[in-house]
Amino acid sequence: MDASRAGAQLTVDLGAIRDNYRLLAGMSKGACAAVMKADAYGLGMEQVAPALALEGCRVFFTAHLQEAIALRQLVPEHCVIYVLHGPPPGTAKDFFQYDLTPVLNEPGQLQEWRRLAHKLGRELPAAIQLDTGMSRMGFAPADLSALGDLAGVRPALVMSHLACADEPDHPMNEAQRRRFDSLRGLLPGVPASLANSSGVFLGPGYHYDLLRPGAALYGINPQPGRPTPLRQAVSLHARVVQVRSVCEGDVVGYGAHHVCAGERRIATVSVGYADGWQRSLSGRGQAAVDGVIVPIVGRVSMDSMGLDVTGIDPERVVPGAEVELMGPTLPVDDVAALAGTIGYEVLTRLGSRFHRRYL
Amino acid sequence: MDASRAGAQLTVDLGAIRDNYRLLAGMSKGACAAVMKADAYGLGMEQVAPALALEGCRVFFTAHLQEAIALRQLVPEHCVIYVLHGPPPGTAKDFFQYDLTPVLNEPGQLQEWRRLAHKLGRELPAAIQLDTGMSRMGFAPADLSALGDLAGVRPALVMSHLACADEPDHPMNEAQRRRFDSLRGLLPGVPASLANSSGVFLGPGYHYDLLRPGAALYGINPQPGRPTPLRQAVSLHARVVQVRSVCEGDVVGYGAHHVCAGERRIATVSVGYADGWQRSLSGRGQAAVDGVIVPIVGRVSMDSMGLDVTGIDPERVVPGAEVELMGPTLPVDDVAALAGTIGYEVLTRLGSRFHRRYL
Repeated sequence: MDASRAGAQLTVDLGAIRDNYRLLAGMSKGACAAVMKADAYGLGMEQVAPALALEGCRVFFTAHLQEAIALRQLVPEHCVIYVLHGPPPGTAKDFFQYDLTPVLNEPGQLQEWRRLAHKLGRELPAAIQLDTGMSRMGFAPADLSALGDLAGVRPALVMSHLACADEPDHPMNEAQRRRFDSLRGLLPGVPASLANSSGVFLGPGYHYDLLRPGAALYGINPQPGRPTPLRQAVSLHARVVQVRSVCEGDVVGYGAHHVCAGERRIATVSVGYADGWQRSLSGRGQAAVDGVIVPIVGRVSMDSMGLDVTGIDPERVVPGAEVELMGPTLPVDDVAALAGTIGYEVLTRLGSRFHRRYL
Repeated sequence: MDASRAGAQLTVDLGAIRDNYRLLAGMSKGACAAVMKADAYGLGMEQVAPALALEGCRVFFTAHLQEAIALRQLVPEHCVIYVLHGPPPGTAKDFFQYDLTPVLNEPGQLQEWRRLAHKLGRELPAAIQLDTGMSRMGFAPADLSALGDLAGVRPALVMSHLACADEPDHPMNEAQRRRFDSLRGLLPGVPASLANSSGVFLGPGYHYDLLRPGAALYGINPQPGRPTPLRQAVSLHARVVQVRSVCEGDVVGYGAHHVCAGERRIATVSVGYADGWQRSLSGRGQAAVDGVIVPIVGRVSMDSMGLDVTGIDPERVVPGAEVELMGPTLPVDDVAALAGTIGYEVLTRLGSRFHRRYL
């Protein structure tokens, strides 16, 4: 989108993402994959995937089949692409056609893959996911007997997912690790993977043969509350539409909830909740002008919101000028905290009306 | 997107949207526009705009220039397209090139448009927005003197926006209406517009010459707490990835916050917060199976979430089956209430990973 026509500019620092990949990959003796689901956490798989391939990444994960089909054209042929949700009924042939590897989560998916292998008369690779306590994806205790007969399927990876890795002291981490060690005995000699971004920081006991970071690549802090070793990868700057002076008693925004306590200057910027700038930021979110924090006042509208820029040089905040919504002054995790959520949700909701710039 | 590969199916009922337009247009003696911003509130401008043009709609509104450029190719040439944010600096020529009409909100935008008119040696049409108390967009009291010289600009519409129209008894409504009547005296004889969706229901005194509904077209109730006369326009059905039995004490989802009180069946469906199914629905949202409500259990993940389907026939909830997230049993306003927000935010956040079907 033409920058002059857009309401905001989203800048993605591919160099930072590559640096983060290098740092994470260097923490383990094993390999390091990259999670590409949800359009590379909202930052653009089309740009992020090739950048990570250049950095040496050879294993990628998506959630959905359709995402993996798109990814197949973006990375070298020898890269492995796993699809975390496995094959929906009737889609096994698509996996084969596009050279995608399913993560098999339950007996039906295993049967689907075995049927295709039988039909093709060849062995097909798959990852086997074991549920170690999160009760989300992966073979449950009652399903394990189905793993007794894998004929036609070559298990290329055995994996599980941690529910509480962002809380290093949570007993669930160790419980899941032990359960993983016990269960993967069913698949002897198969490379293993357990660690998501936060899991990488739980130590070498969680690394196994393949790390699977997503969030950390994109600058989300995998250890909430502690200093992050990762670089911020994304910034968002909104354009000012207009600036007005308001008087004591004037109201700002829907519902007339914000009542001005005195004379103030209000800038309307053209980003709203339709752009992913959550309505929960109403009256509590922040923006920044050259490093100085200014508050969001009133409710966030669909396409715009108000900022109190009284303390900022009026010549700096004029129609067409840009203010920071996320970036050096407002890291993604801070924005998420103000919105009452996590950085993952902030990034994956970034809208489609921005001009996007890749560094 | 191929339906079999998608994690969910979004169905948009264009017939319902046309019915809603007809109902709204019939409420006023004047004309009725349609608001198309944010991709027709997330439902797809490419399909919605032509459907409304067929229904007789001749005036459309977008927020951004880029949206209007896309809209220009979707509706007949004689349709008027207004851009609510007005021209960002340097873009007046784009408005002229694509036959778009800016909503002028402040003196700088007026100057921008006047400069182009002068350069072209012709009069250019514009809407003039007056701020009547919302302090968001439109000429503020201090800006009004600039309206004294419109040479080169033909005011085709004078408009303002209501801050509290969804609260019929709020004194702000009448205060804004009076202020609008007073201010539009500056532009005698110019057609006027004040009513958004909720404003239409405040009565004929708010209708003027042009209604501007958005939300109501798409089935959002413009009168919260009262029966809606409008048809639901959208439904969302998610695909089941897998189903598992859990025991007393087992946990579900991130953070291990949901602890099962007894033996339950949990279905994992492939919609999560990256699809706009807000994380605030964790542990409080709902889905429905053939009209029977089932709760979301545990935290909503990025690409999936868990439902407690213990009470549902096991043969109905199997991998590949669909469950309702929004539709006849769960109208958009109910989903919004569970998420702690409004229907506008639910619709405008609908994700891009769905198979979309238009009726």
